[in-house]
Amino acid sequence: MSLLVIGTLAYDTIETQAEKRVDVLGGSAMFFSVAAAAFRPVQLVAVVGKDFRPGDLDMLKRRGIDTSGVEHAEGRTFRWSGRYEADWNTRHTIETQLNVFEKFDPKIPAAMRLSKYLFLANASPVVQAKALDQVEHPAFTVLDTMNLWIEIMRPELMALLRRVDGVVLNDEEARMLTGERNLIKAASLVLGMGPRYVILKKGEHGAFLMGNDVHFSLPAYPVKKVVDPTGAGDTFAGGFMGHVAREGNIAPKTLRKAMLYGTVAASYCVEDFGVDALKNTGLGDFDVRYEELLGIVTP
Amino acid sequence: MSLLVIGTLAYDTIETQAEKRVDVLGGSAMFFSVAAAAFRPVQLVAVVGKDFRPGDLDMLKRRGIDTSGVEHAEGRTFRWSGRYEADWNTRHTIETQLNVFEKFDPKIPAAMRLSKYLFLANASPVVQAKALDQVEHPAFTVLDTMNLWIEIMRPELMALLRRVDGVVLNDEEARMLTGERNLIKAASLVLGMGPRYVILKKGEHGAFLMGNDVHFSLPAYPVKKVVDPTGAGDTFAGGFMGHVAREGNIAPKTLRKAMLYGTVAASYCVEDFGVDALKNTGLGDFDVRYEELLGIVTP
Repeated sequence: MSLLVIGTLAYDTIETQAEKRVDVLGGSAMFFSVAAAAFRPVQLVAVVGKDFRPGDLDMLKRRGIDTSGVEHAEGRTFRWSGRYEADWNTRHTIETQLNVFEKFDPKIPAAMRLSKYLFLANASPVVQAKALDQVEHPAFTVLDTMNLWIEIMRPELMALLRRVDGVVLNDEEARMLTGERNLIKAASLVLGMGPRYVILKKGEHGAFLMGNDVHFSLPAYPVKKVVDPTGAGDTFAGGFMGHVAREGNIAPKTLRKAMLYGTVAASYCVEDFGVDALKNTGLGDFDVRYEELLGIVTP
Repeated sequence: MSLLVIGTLAYDTIETQAEKRVDVLGGSAMFFSVAAAAFRPVQLVAVVGKDFRPGDLDMLKRRGIDTSGVEHAEGRTFRWSGRYEADWNTRHTIETQLNVFEKFDPKIPAAMRLSKYLFLANASPVVQAKALDQVEHPAFTVLDTMNLWIEIMRPELMALLRRVDGVVLNDEEARMLTGERNLIKAASLVLGMGPRYVILKKGEHGAFLMGNDVHFSLPAYPVKKVVDPTGAGDTFAGGFMGHVAREGNIAPKTLRKAMLYGTVAASYCVEDFGVDALKNTGLGDFDVRYEELLGIVTP
């Protein structure tokens, strides 16, 4: 089934304890689509500036990603810079430059409006709602967000939560959104806000999926060397939605397998900067780690 | 198969954000044996002072725990007091009074020296080694320890690690013992120190088991309300060893199921102070949560 994503394409400047890299290809929709494209052709809606490197678009096309919905606007591409502490869990945002994303008014090409699987990658709830308005009858819509929008656009976000089937949140976002520290209780509270499913990501501690008909929890894939965790959450969502779109259903069994594929996709993401590791992986690589992870988590 | 534990019986003073309790029944061998006794009769070797409440010993006997190896020494029972931060992960030790434990020279009754399953609960490596010396042909010996012994008795601990089959460590202890932050790598390094199996406990983030023939990881049971996490690790070990002793083998399948039972036992432990919740649970209660956890972790 067709899979559509709207979100950011970006150039990130990333400082880890070991290294600093400038203008690394990133953005929520970038990580998502590079991961999801291993499973299904992906339709991508985003905006870039005049400085966006043609080679970066070519990489997406080679991966089977339809980039006809990527708008080329006057100005510079969205930029984010951040620094990680030695434990990887603490991330400091140094600077966010919205650039062309500031005035982004998403236009979904006619051919993409019939997409059945829709991922609203991290962006302002206003932009996300505008995109959702244009998709005619999505079968399964999942939303991502971040602490910034929970803080400054809560009403818009709450309205959007009532319109989607699922939401992905990390532990910090779930706590901020609900005011509840216990993540199981926080997830239950999020389900009361509208979505039928919540995926709660805990970084190196794994993730869980909660819905009325499913509760599934799993640890992270045992990555031996983390190089850059940027985009791991978006990549998780890409692996998850990619598998769901491939299966064409949201049966509990499908969603559980999708959680494993999300975990596996994220494990490749963190092994290099940006999408450097991820862009060279195919479904065969995902399947190898899927089987390995299955062996680790099956009682 | 027979299951023997040696460790501490204690009275703890515990401060949580909600409440302070004085002289709560605790100790490493207490939590272990109360949990393990749900599966198999347990043989307990420990020392208490003249102040140990007879009713507390009666509770152990009613649970099928053989207390004939509990020495009654002159002086006061071991005491520990600590305080938990709101996130439960940060625990401050306020005071440790060794009392009768300071001169504890463990004597294992003749009838217990043929035990096949042995758990060396947290105590000094010197006391643990003395106990191990007296058990004739243990089939499966597992060791617990703590940051204090890693710091002040490393040579004794390293010698002991070469004599046991398995070791249980929490994340902090594994990092301190190996100097490695990545827990997968830390576990591998611990395997290089002698034991065939390492169980790494991550509190609310679950636990994993690593050995040459098995790697199994699982999340914690989704406890809705934590009251007091004291003893959760010892209780995990009790559920784990209880199931292993009941099965009478250490096949990978047995060890995986044992990890679930350890998780379930710990979930009851944290729901009240000391062993207050745990002492009222039977195998039926464990099986209810075992099935529930199985549903949550099975792909």
